[in-house]
Amino acid sequence: MKKYVAEFIGTFVLTLFGCGSAAISGGIDGVLGVLGIAMAFGLSIVAMAYSIGNISGCHINPAVSFAMLLSKKMDVKDFVGYVVAQCLGALVAAAILMGIGSMCSPVIEGLGTNGFGDASYVGLSMIGAVIVEIILTFVFLMAILGVTSTEKFSSVAGIVIGLTLAFVHILGIPLTGTSVNPARSLGPAIMAAVGGDTVPISQVWVFIVAPLIGAAIAAYVWKFISEGKEA
Amino acid sequence: MKKYVAEFIGTFVLTLFGCGSAAISGGIDGVLGVLGIAMAFGLSIVAMAYSIGNISGCHINPAVSFAMLLSKKMDVKDFVGYVVAQCLGALVAAAILMGIGSMCSPVIEGLGTNGFGDASYVGLSMIGAVIVEIILTFVFLMAILGVTSTEKFSSVAGIVIGLTLAFVHILGIPLTGTSVNPARSLGPAIMAAVGGDTVPISQVWVFIVAPLIGAAIAAYVWKFISEGKEA
Amino acid sequence: MKKYVAEFIGTFVLTLFGCGSAAISGGIDGVLGVLGIAMAFGLSIVAMAYSIGNISGCHINPAVSFAMLLSKKMDVKDFVGYVVAQCLGALVAAAILMGIGSMCSPVIEGLGTNGFGDASYVGLSMIGAVIVEIILTFVFLMAILGVTSTEKFSSVAGIVIGLTLAFVHILGIPLTGTSVNPARSLGPAIMAAVGGDTVPISQVWVFIVAPLIGAAIAAYVWKFISEGKEA
Amino acid sequence: MKKYVAEFIGTFVLTLFGCGSAAISGGIDGVLGVLGIAMAFGLSIVAMAYSIGNISGCHINPAVSFAMLLSKKMDVKDFVGYVVAQCLGALVAAAILMGIGSMCSPVIEGLGTNGFGDASYVGLSMIGAVIVEIILTFVFLMAILGVTSTEKFSSVAGIVIGLTLAFVHILGIPLTGTSVNPARSLGPAIMAAVGGDTVPISQVWVFIVAPLIGAAIAAYVWKFISEGKEA
Repeated sequence: MKKYVAEFIGTFVLTLFGCGSAAISGGIDGVLGVLGIAMAFGLSIVAMAYSIGNISGCHINPAVSFAMLLSKKMDVKDFVGYVVAQCLGALVAAAILMGIGSMCSPVIEGLGTNGFGDASYVGLSMIGAVIVEIILTFVFLMAILGVTSTEKFSSVAGIVIGLTLAFVHILGIPLTGTSVNPARSLGPAIMAAVGGDTVPISQVWVFIVAPLIGAAIAAYVWKFISEGKEA
Repeated sequence: MKKYVAEFIGTFVLTLFGCGSAAISGGIDGVLGVLGIAMAFGLSIVAMAYSIGNISGCHINPAVSFAMLLSKKMDVKDFVGYVVAQCLGALVAAAILMGIGSMCSPVIEGLGTNGFGDASYVGLSMIGAVIVEIILTFVFLMAILGVTSTEKFSSVAGIVIGLTLAFVHILGIPLTGTSVNPARSLGPAIMAAVGGDTVPISQVWVFIVAPLIGAAIAAYVWKFISEGKEA
Repeated sequence: MKKYVAEFIGTFVLTLFGCGSAAISGGIDGVLGVLGIAMAFGLSIVAMAYSIGNISGCHINPAVSFAMLLSKKMDVKDFVGYVVAQCLGALVAAAILMGIGSMCSPVIEGLGTNGFGDASYVGLSMIGAVIVEIILTFVFLMAILGVTSTEKFSSVAGIVIGLTLAFVHILGIPLTGTSVNPARSLGPAIMAAVGGDTVPISQVWVFIVAPLIGAAIAAYVWKFISEGKEA
Repeated sequence: MKKYVAEFIGTFVLTLFGCGSAAISGGIDGVLGVLGIAMAFGLSIVAMAYSIGNISGCHINPAVSFAMLLSKKMDVKDFVGYVVAQCLGALVAAAILMGIGSMCSPVIEGLGTNGFGDASYVGLSMIGAVIVEIILTFVFLMAILGVTSTEKFSSVAGIVIGLTLAFVHILGIPLTGTSVNPARSLGPAIMAAVGGDTVPISQVWVFIVAPLIGAAIAAYVWKFISEGKEA
């Protein structure tokens, strides 16, 4: 049970601080900028990995849990429990972010949602968004699978994974806002719909399906290149 | 005695460099920007943790000492000594920052104070500021309690805590300026009052009470999720 | 064979994310800025070093492989295999970047190519570009040769090399865009020619020759200062 | 002899890349900004510490060598050799930076010199500059003395010292440009005088004397708080 609580807290922090930094600071053109938003998402991993990492492994992302399931590092029951906890954490985070925004003057309505087409800073098409999210998640998972494959890197693993999450945000923020995390996309999309903006929820399938595909590809590629003897 | 000297120096450095970077560079809209100010606060921990960490533990923050007190990792006498040293360090830092500002041309009057309402970049309400500071401090303390709970992370703990302090500043700077540290708020607020601006001192209770609440919540949540066997 | 696949993937990631971040975010004057672009290139090493590092060593750069060849840390057959895999990885990355750009609205045509003269942000001459790239690559290789010379640094080596690559980009981006990596320059230059812009391919020899010279100098300087007894 | 060569190379890199990044990117208001310039200086330590650290200790700064001399960690002969090598490295770096600037179009004349009064971004007075440089150098040296005092931190020491140098630049760049390093100030000041601008050389004594004072204070404070039993 405690590991589900840990995943709830971790995904709550990732979503509130990542999406919140984008929303509160005015987004890509705001006072924080692309690099700052990328660091907000990335450092959420640094903060949480050394806190809840020993309890739940700090997945805080259904795509990460999916890759662990495919790599036979977690069972189906825990996978379901993790994903539920992650989605709830992201949903509560988005609700609190909406509450904080409503206490600002003037009110801040952004929730750091992901999107494509008109909702993309550079007008990326739907197909483009699918391709981009697959690639971003593939790279993110390759780093996770690699750095956690040996005890040698255990002291720096949280820093490496956090910097890699920042990395995939640097490229992806102008394209899709970077999801690579279905929970992080779903929570804000639901709360946006509650607030009357239904575009994010209508596009959210891309940010659920594509990260899962990217994670699956990474699990199989990692298995291929890391197994057995060098040919 | 030496550990109190260490805490004085550490909090002096955090306050002078953190608040000073915000003030000297013109704040959120200035030449340093939100990410730069966040890094100034965060890197103060990196600089000091590897310097005075072996002497005092480098709390340099009454909220951190409070969580350690609640977690029974320090006694009441040391808690009082640490907090007095921390507040004095921050006060001297604010005084020196005021002095440096007076030697600039034109004079720089900002002291990096925290605030809400009109003193918040996004006009966050008082209730909002209390909620935000509780959450920010909770997250900061969760990382501290986690990374210091095992010897395994001792070489990177100072980097992790520093990056986490930068992290909570990225979200919090536009909202409240981010306190999470009563000493860091009190010193500049007192010196601002000396200089004739009484708004910060009238609001400073938020930045004393809320961080202490956030730290207490973190101490109890950490105790809950880290203790005993996995259910 | 697997190590060539690893080098293909790694150079693909470096080129797509590094050059892509520059192109998608509008370059030096864009929403990401010089520091952000530098971090994109640097963090590609962090992401990949802990992933494919145990498989291929994560050179993902012909100049790095060349220094390893000169330092007798790899044989000629592997050198050729690595360089071919690296150049193919960069070429595929540039092709995919062109594809992503074509799915943006309006279309993004930049590919993060290197250049001098009118193609340099500060109008650096050809001779200047040769000198700059030799120095940048020399510094990058000195760090790589140093940090990989002792097992003591194995846990942080990927972070150190990544931060060093970011470092040489900070100075070099306004000058040449920073290559220090013939594959990273060749891939985008070829695709730019496919798209009708032949300037990058006409200048690309500088970004092949100069990095190899810089790497060779580093290999010999490192040999000199690290060998034998202190005089 | 080799350790002097190492110090020459290291100080050359710090000066060329640190001062060069400021000059080439247009300084505080330029495309790199305060945080970027700070990172350029800081990451020069990361790049060099893991390269020449095992050979010379990577002081690359007369103030650091002075603190080591006072702490009886180096003898007078080596101190003199180190300082000469450091000053030569910085001088050659400034000369090459001037050469690179002359190959830009339009020519770039800045050399990243330190200054006060009209040469300070915020018009800091001479007395203010002395105070600021003493404090900045004190903090930088406290971190160096602390992190190098135990073998436990050896893998991360270069990263910690580099981030601390970035840290003292974040506050100091708008004030004095941040020296904390007499060699880094002297080299560009001499070359500026060669180019006809004698202001930096007339002010350079501040950036020689103040860092040495700050380093001496740090050496004695560190001795005091780290020695003996806790009272």
